[in-house]
Amino acid sequence: MKIQALVDQIHLKKSFLCIGLDVDLNRIPRHLLEAEDPIFAFNRAIIDATHHLAVAYKPNTAFYEAFGVKGWQSLKKTIDYLNEKHPEIFTIADAKRGDIGNTSSMYAKAFFEDMAFDAVTVAPYMGKDSVEPFLAFEDKHAILLALTSNGGAFDFQTKLVEGSELYKQVLQTSKGWANSENLMYVVGATKAEFLVEVRGIIPESFLLVPGVGAQGGSLEEVVKYGMNDQVGLLVNSSRGIIYASANEDFAEAAAAKAQEIRSKMKGFL
Amino acid sequence: MKIQALVDQIHLKKSFLCIGLDVDLNRIPRHLLEAEDPIFAFNRAIIDATHHLAVAYKPNTAFYEAFGVKGWQSLKKTIDYLNEKHPEIFTIADAKRGDIGNTSSMYAKAFFEDMAFDAVTVAPYMGKDSVEPFLAFEDKHAILLALTSNGGAFDFQTKLVEGSELYKQVLQTSKGWANSENLMYVVGATKAEFLVEVRGIIPESFLLVPGVGAQGGSLEEVVKYGMNDQVGLLVNSSRGIIYASANEDFAEAAAAKAQEIRSKMKGFL
Repeated sequence: MKIQALVDQIHLKKSFLCIGLDVDLNRIPRHLLEAEDPIFAFNRAIIDATHHLAVAYKPNTAFYEAFGVKGWQSLKKTIDYLNEKHPEIFTIADAKRGDIGNTSSMYAKAFFEDMAFDAVTVAPYMGKDSVEPFLAFEDKHAILLALTSNGGAFDFQTKLVEGSELYKQVLQTSKGWANSENLMYVVGATKAEFLVEVRGIIPESFLLVPGVGAQGGSLEEVVKYGMNDQVGLLVNSSRGIIYASANEDFAEAAAAKAQEIRSKMKGFL
Repeated sequence: MKIQALVDQIHLKKSFLCIGLDVDLNRIPRHLLEAEDPIFAFNRAIIDATHHLAVAYKPNTAFYEAFGVKGWQSLKKTIDYLNEKHPEIFTIADAKRGDIGNTSSMYAKAFFEDMAFDAVTVAPYMGKDSVEPFLAFEDKHAILLALTSNGGAFDFQTKLVEGSELYKQVLQTSKGWANSENLMYVVGATKAEFLVEVRGIIPESFLLVPGVGAQGGSLEEVVKYGMNDQVGLLVNSSRGIIYASANEDFAEAAAAKAQEIRSKMKGFL
C-alpha cells in the first residue's frame, strides 16, 4: 500500500487506530473453541465488528507460531481474509525479524509474497544488510524497532552511543539505507516525551506506537508530541480491544472499545 | 539437553560441528522437487549422511517461512525426525526472535514445546524481559546475538556504549538475567580476534559461531581464541556443506565436506 492511500484512509475513517490481533486461546470466549479454527474465527469476528473504526491490523506472529502448523494456517487465513474483504486496510506482520542479507530476503518473501502483508516489523541489531532486503519491495514497508514499550527498552536502547542514545543512532543511521522511504518506526507510547526528539530526526516517517491502553501510554501525549502534517501515527491497541469481553458479546465489546478510542482520535484530526 | 550431554557428544564424535539446514528450493537437486515434501526430503538425506559427523543441526526459520504453511510443516517434520532418530543431537531453531515478555513466552512455547528444539537464537535489542522467558525452561537454551558475522554488525554492535562496544554490553548485562546459565551466544567467525575479549567476559558459555566457510572465517582462529576447557564452541557451516553438490550425490558430497571439517576439529580436541 502507498503511504498516501494510508493517509487517505486515516482521514476518511477519522481514525489512526491499529488493532493488534494477539490471539491467546486461553483468553478467547469458550464457545469459539468448538470452531474448526478458533483463532481465525475469533479474528474474523473482531475484524467484521471493527474494520470501519481501524485503519490497520497487526497480528503478532508469536501468538500463531505457539500453535505450530495450525497457528501458521490461522495467520495465513487471517491475512487472506483481510486482503479479500478489506483491501483498504493496512496490514502489519508484527514479526520482529532480522538476519543476514540473504536470510532477511527469505523473511521478506514470507511476509510480502507468501502472505501479502503491507508491512513487517524488523529488529535493527544486525544493521543495514539485515533491513535493506525488506525495503526493496515497492509499496511495502519495514517498521524498524527504535524505542519499544517494555521495561527492557532501557537495557540497551537508551544507552549513550557516541553521545546520543542507541535508538537515536538507529533512527539516524537507517535514514541512509537504500529505499529508506519505505521505513516506518516502532516508538512506544509509554515514553511519549521521547517523541519530540524522535520527530527531530525523522519528521516525516510513520510511527507505529504500541503501549496505549493496557501498557499505560497516553493517546493525548502521543498526538501532542508525535503527530505530523500527514498524521504520521498508527496507534496500536491489542488486549484492551480484543479482550474487552470473554463472553458471546466479545466482538460487540471490542467494537465499543475501538469506537471509544476512535472518538478521541477524531478530535485530534 | 543438558550442557554436559552436549560436551559428552562433542568428545564422543570428536566434532563440534553444527550443520545449518538453510534449504533453498532453487539450490537443491532437481530430482527432489518431485518428492511430496522436497525440503524435508533434502533435510532427511543430509541428516542421514552426516549425523555421525555433527553434534548439532540448525534450521534457519526464514527458509521455511518463505514457503508459508508448507514450509512450517517441513520444519516441524525436520525437528520431529531429528528428535526421533537422533535424540543425542543438539537442535537449534535459528529464529532470532525477541519481543515483550508475554510475547516472547509464546515464541518459547513455539520452539521448545510445539517444536521440541533444544535452543533458539534470540535478538537482544528489547532487553531483559524479551530474553528471560526463553531461559525459564529447564535444559533449554537461548542463544543470544552478540556479534554477528555480517557487514551490518558494524552499524551498531561494535559502537562504543559508555566506553565499551555494544556487543560487550550485551554479554555483560545478560549475565545478570534470571537463569543466565541457560544462555549461549552467537559470535561470528569472521571476527575471530574479538573472541579474546568475548572470553574475558563469558569464559564458560557455549558460543555458536557462524561464518566459517562460505563467509570466510577461519576454524583455526576460532579454536585458538574461543575454545575453553568444556570446548565451548559450536561451529556452524550451512551452504558449504549442504550445497556441496547439486546432483544426485548431494548427500555423499555433504558428508565429505562435513568429514573434512570434522577431521580438522578432531585435531583440536
